[in-house]
Amino acid sequence: MKKVGIIGVSGYTGAELSRLLANHDHVQLTVATSRQYAGQKLSDIYPALRKRVDLVCENISGKELAERADLFFTAVPHKTAMDIVPDLLEAGKKVIDLSADYRLRDLATYEQWYQPHSSPEYIDQAVYGLPEIYREQIRKTSLAANTGCFPITAILGLKPLLEERLIATNNIIIDSKTGTSGAGRSANVATLFCEVHDGFKPYKVGGVHRHIPEMEQELSLLAGEKTSITFTPHLLPISRGILSTIYTEPLKPCKQQELQQLYEEKYAAEPFVRVCPAGTVPTLQHLRGSNYCDISIVVEERTGRVMILSAIDNIGKGSAGQAVQNMNLMLGLDETTGLMQIPCFP
Amino acid sequence: MKKVGIIGVSGYTGAELSRLLANHDHVQLTVATSRQYAGQKLSDIYPALRKRVDLVCENISGKELAERADLFFTAVPHKTAMDIVPDLLEAGKKVIDLSADYRLRDLATYEQWYQPHSSPEYIDQAVYGLPEIYREQIRKTSLAANTGCFPITAILGLKPLLEERLIATNNIIIDSKTGTSGAGRSANVATLFCEVHDGFKPYKVGGVHRHIPEMEQELSLLAGEKTSITFTPHLLPISRGILSTIYTEPLKPCKQQELQQLYEEKYAAEPFVRVCPAGTVPTLQHLRGSNYCDISIVVEERTGRVMILSAIDNIGKGSAGQAVQNMNLMLGLDETTGLMQIPCFP
Amino acid sequence: MKKVGIIGVSGYTGAELSRLLANHDHVQLTVATSRQYAGQKLSDIYPALRKRVDLVCENISGKELAERADLFFTAVPHKTAMDIVPDLLEAGKKVIDLSADYRLRDLATYEQWYQPHSSPEYIDQAVYGLPEIYREQIRKTSLAANTGCFPITAILGLKPLLEERLIATNNIIIDSKTGTSGAGRSANVATLFCEVHDGFKPYKVGGVHRHIPEMEQELSLLAGEKTSITFTPHLLPISRGILSTIYTEPLKPCKQQELQQLYEEKYAAEPFVRVCPAGTVPTLQHLRGSNYCDISIVVEERTGRVMILSAIDNIGKGSAGQAVQNMNLMLGLDETTGLMQIPCFP
Amino acid sequence: MKKVGIIGVSGYTGAELSRLLANHDHVQLTVATSRQYAGQKLSDIYPALRKRVDLVCENISGKELAERADLFFTAVPHKTAMDIVPDLLEAGKKVIDLSADYRLRDLATYEQWYQPHSSPEYIDQAVYGLPEIYREQIRKTSLAANTGCFPITAILGLKPLLEERLIATNNIIIDSKTGTSGAGRSANVATLFCEVHDGFKPYKVGGVHRHIPEMEQELSLLAGEKTSITFTPHLLPISRGILSTIYTEPLKPCKQQELQQLYEEKYAAEPFVRVCPAGTVPTLQHLRGSNYCDISIVVEERTGRVMILSAIDNIGKGSAGQAVQNMNLMLGLDETTGLMQIPCFP
Repeated sequence: MKKVGIIGVSGYTGAELSRLLANHDHVQLTVATSRQYAGQKLSDIYPALRKRVDLVCENISGKELAERADLFFTAVPHKTAMDIVPDLLEAGKKVIDLSADYRLRDLATYEQWYQPHSSPEYIDQAVYGLPEIYREQIRKTSLAANTGCFPITAILGLKPLLEERLIATNNIIIDSKTGTSGAGRSANVATLFCEVHDGFKPYKVGGVHRHIPEMEQELSLLAGEKTSITFTPHLLPISRGILSTIYTEPLKPCKQQELQQLYEEKYAAEPFVRVCPAGTVPTLQHLRGSNYCDISIVVEERTGRVMILSAIDNIGKGSAGQAVQNMNLMLGLDETTGLMQIPCFP
Repeated sequence: MKKVGIIGVSGYTGAELSRLLANHDHVQLTVATSRQYAGQKLSDIYPALRKRVDLVCENISGKELAERADLFFTAVPHKTAMDIVPDLLEAGKKVIDLSADYRLRDLATYEQWYQPHSSPEYIDQAVYGLPEIYREQIRKTSLAANTGCFPITAILGLKPLLEERLIATNNIIIDSKTGTSGAGRSANVATLFCEVHDGFKPYKVGGVHRHIPEMEQELSLLAGEKTSITFTPHLLPISRGILSTIYTEPLKPCKQQELQQLYEEKYAAEPFVRVCPAGTVPTLQHLRGSNYCDISIVVEERTGRVMILSAIDNIGKGSAGQAVQNMNLMLGLDETTGLMQIPCFP
Repeated sequence: MKKVGIIGVSGYTGAELSRLLANHDHVQLTVATSRQYAGQKLSDIYPALRKRVDLVCENISGKELAERADLFFTAVPHKTAMDIVPDLLEAGKKVIDLSADYRLRDLATYEQWYQPHSSPEYIDQAVYGLPEIYREQIRKTSLAANTGCFPITAILGLKPLLEERLIATNNIIIDSKTGTSGAGRSANVATLFCEVHDGFKPYKVGGVHRHIPEMEQELSLLAGEKTSITFTPHLLPISRGILSTIYTEPLKPCKQQELQQLYEEKYAAEPFVRVCPAGTVPTLQHLRGSNYCDISIVVEERTGRVMILSAIDNIGKGSAGQAVQNMNLMLGLDETTGLMQIPCFP
Repeated sequence: MKKVGIIGVSGYTGAELSRLLANHDHVQLTVATSRQYAGQKLSDIYPALRKRVDLVCENISGKELAERADLFFTAVPHKTAMDIVPDLLEAGKKVIDLSADYRLRDLATYEQWYQPHSSPEYIDQAVYGLPEIYREQIRKTSLAANTGCFPITAILGLKPLLEERLIATNNIIIDSKTGTSGAGRSANVATLFCEVHDGFKPYKVGGVHRHIPEMEQELSLLAGEKTSITFTPHLLPISRGILSTIYTEPLKPCKQQELQQLYEEKYAAEPFVRVCPAGTVPTLQHLRGSNYCDISIVVEERTGRVMILSAIDNIGKGSAGQAVQNMNLMLGLDETTGLMQIPCFP
């Protein structure tokens, strides 16, 4: 039984990690930190966890913290993470970082989109935490950079087309819609119930969302050439879920049936990718609470465009679920352990 | 590995049973019937189940059906159930009936609130399927009458007070609020999204809801005397959850602390009842997808009234979850097997 | 054309007042204050108002403010209001106070439930701002204390029964459910979208909500004797609307038809009260955006209890709508001017 | 006072027409038909209308119907409309048809996307009912073909760019999201509350939605050349609202400020188009219940793409509101009469 810890447990991702780990047979959650809620039981903050998670939030750090577990999840904002991760690694611990601090391989790009990096020396040894691409590297790393939520839908959605060089790499449009949990649990007028409910809106329009360089990095690697995207996120009046509608330009005419077959073959062995049967589409309500990514591939006959619909639970496969999947790999466990929740519908 | 079947799998209760059974280590779902969807994969109707439940809906009945499993869930409307259950029992099978057909012990009461009963001879051998009261009888029965969804909140909420003879039995008001999944999955203008969303309303006002005799039956047994209630259901714009606010008149002044202690003691050994810490209340979002019943007991100082707040997931503890709990008892398994899902919040 | 001002325009009530006044033919909104948003256009904060409300929020007070209009709405929290209202009155202006500061006639009661009062001398001259009871006094007053949102449903719902001495005054239970806009527009974790959506919960349970003394004051006046209530508010995952389910004990047996007739007669002349036809109930989605109060009266045959269902839009009749109705009376205008919005369904 | 009638009043569009007409100073709703609800008061079906709309639904047609009003709204499905409209026109009445039957100018296109047309002779005299383009023709016509809901967002969103020949006409992607009221009020499992709530999904993916030929017809006319689109609708868990995110390829580099100015100038005189200030975006919650179309124009610096965000209330400007706007024009009234509702937020 390995011991694991969560740094920054009081956000939605921390809570979901606690939920998943409480039902995990091969690890034990031994420490959870929260500055704001130090001394409080986690189940008092999240009554959903009552009778199941006994942990009390602590405000500890450094060596004191490092000694308490073998592997840590850093569920803190970018910039905060880079101040914590190096100490844990130096103490010989494994880390799954859920912030953006170690996702971008190019330091300049990171500093352009975020801010100066205080521990660039660890960027090289970090593995981008997407098991469907980097499974073997994740098994061996001490530092997995858990992916952004939007990038998962884009990368898994486009992977087969890019690997097979079927589409133009300069004409990809990703129109994404996310549930509100992605905005976190901070007090904020913009995410009050009355501001979001019964509404819908785009945000960070015009190529300014920080997940763009992350997507372009991974898509370029898959394509073997520089790939650029237009990305527009929208805010849905739901709690969980991201659905991306992706528009691409094929390099030669494609047939629906061939692409359907391509996707089914590419993902046949993946436990958490479900290619939708032809003629059906992903729906967010059928992913709630799970670690699945549902993908449809569609050829539009009238225009020849190829579309991908790709959807996840943003707190599941989009963050906490994927983090547990990475943990399983890093600890040598079966990759699906603790992740077999079937989506909760309705 | 016992074989189990679901009769009427296409409704929300049937789908939730499938979800729970797919993650159950000691039973195998071997047959599922649906007249409407015969020949279709259950996971085509409920994409949430894709990759996890392979079953194809069948339209079979009688002996052909009985041979396919050891225990059956009848997830069909009242009146339909009474035509199916006797055959299964006579074939030596165990049955958990999720309809109302075997819940009322008094035939006349049943026929007054429902319609003539075609198999009254089985009423006596049915056990009311509430493990927190009838655990030992359920272990031995072949026919468990799974309880109504509203009654669970009322019965578990009032049990300690009634058993201790602390409240008047002729002045109990149960104001209940339920999610829309309780209305089922039939095409119906009244439960269209636009009719329910962003709204709220009472229904079946004035003592006409069919769960009233069921509640009065069980509350009277707990109280040891005839108990009558006023019950008003309301429709919430959410999918899952029932919260009942119960107002009672104590026979002598009660103290908050004593009642809190009483409830905690009474339910200390129950795996699926969570008594909320004093000063906190149940919230439906923290029960979603689980088999828990959360209960608060409150003494209103100004008036002396005693209030109970009692909440469940109506498809979880309110139907499918409780049915699996009953199944575990009837099959001699650990009562909590397959039911340890932690509520999915947010 | 009278000039009116809004003090504290940036909350939901202030925004709704702006919306209503923009379509009012006989008054002009000439000033709106907000400390937080001073210098910003109100329509930048609430894009719904774009092209229709040109006002810029100002941070002014005292004499400078008083000179800008003839009548003011103070849409600020209690305690803040009592520091503003006296100056306006002394400057000869009319005031409709939307806080609780002048609603309670008994100073001791106010100070017990709120805090010390800094201008108790104005309590006597304030008129409780419920036109259905105090219409004539409101016409003549300079200070109307706009009612609380919950009290409207209770007072209008119980008025006919209490006036006719038909029910016991010590056994009234008011189970209320409110939309989230009632919690205001302050950044607050408890009212974040993800905390409220798809959920439901009671709050301030056990007789501690500050609307209780206000309700008891007015109900006692209607009954001609001390009246006490049990009141439990619940939070609905909707933006607008309050529905109260009220349980009473009749002093002698009542008949449905007689009470239906009583209610229809009592409210026949009221422009904003709609008595629901027998057998129908109020639903919040059919009140959205309006100034109506919908009421059903129900006799429960089985127990003899008499129930009232009473519903409003909490920002409409529950605050801003009622405030405009009071303004119309205080300015000698037709009471319904600017308030004939038909509810927006779906 | 002109007399108007609604044919097919029981759907959401019919109800909204009733709501708008009840507050219209210059017309009187004299007849409303519904086969299903004949004999029932409209306000019993839609309690929102109680005390304000007294109409009883009738099941009449032909001459009997035609005599009852001067102008008719046909709020019925396509194919049904074409059987009703000719009789009304021949009786000398004016008609605003809310179905698709007279929107497409090319008969073959109509018959390819719909079914054979029974009154093609009226196609030529029909005017496409979009006042922002066809204002003068609408004033003179007897038959206005009210536009589809999605097309309004696309056409008004793209009009300035196409008129100025600024974008490629073969690379337009319209990613639209609609509230559920667009699916109508028929009993249907797919639009039950539990199927839609807390979810999101695309539908009619791959170029098969019937609004495509309507959009391409009008966009081609604006562009002066054949224009083709990719269009993907998605279903939002809200009642009202459509937001379209439109991606275009500029023919030469565009500057944000120039396009902003272009849009503001083009729409300066339009009473119901609001161009959002640079840096802001339309949000559906700020359009609810109104006749506005809110539009943002955005140049994405990184890629040079030009994006348009265009949003309406689909029952407002998207159908009933626009129909009333057309009626005002056809009856020689001020175009904005009865349409000045300010959006209802929150």
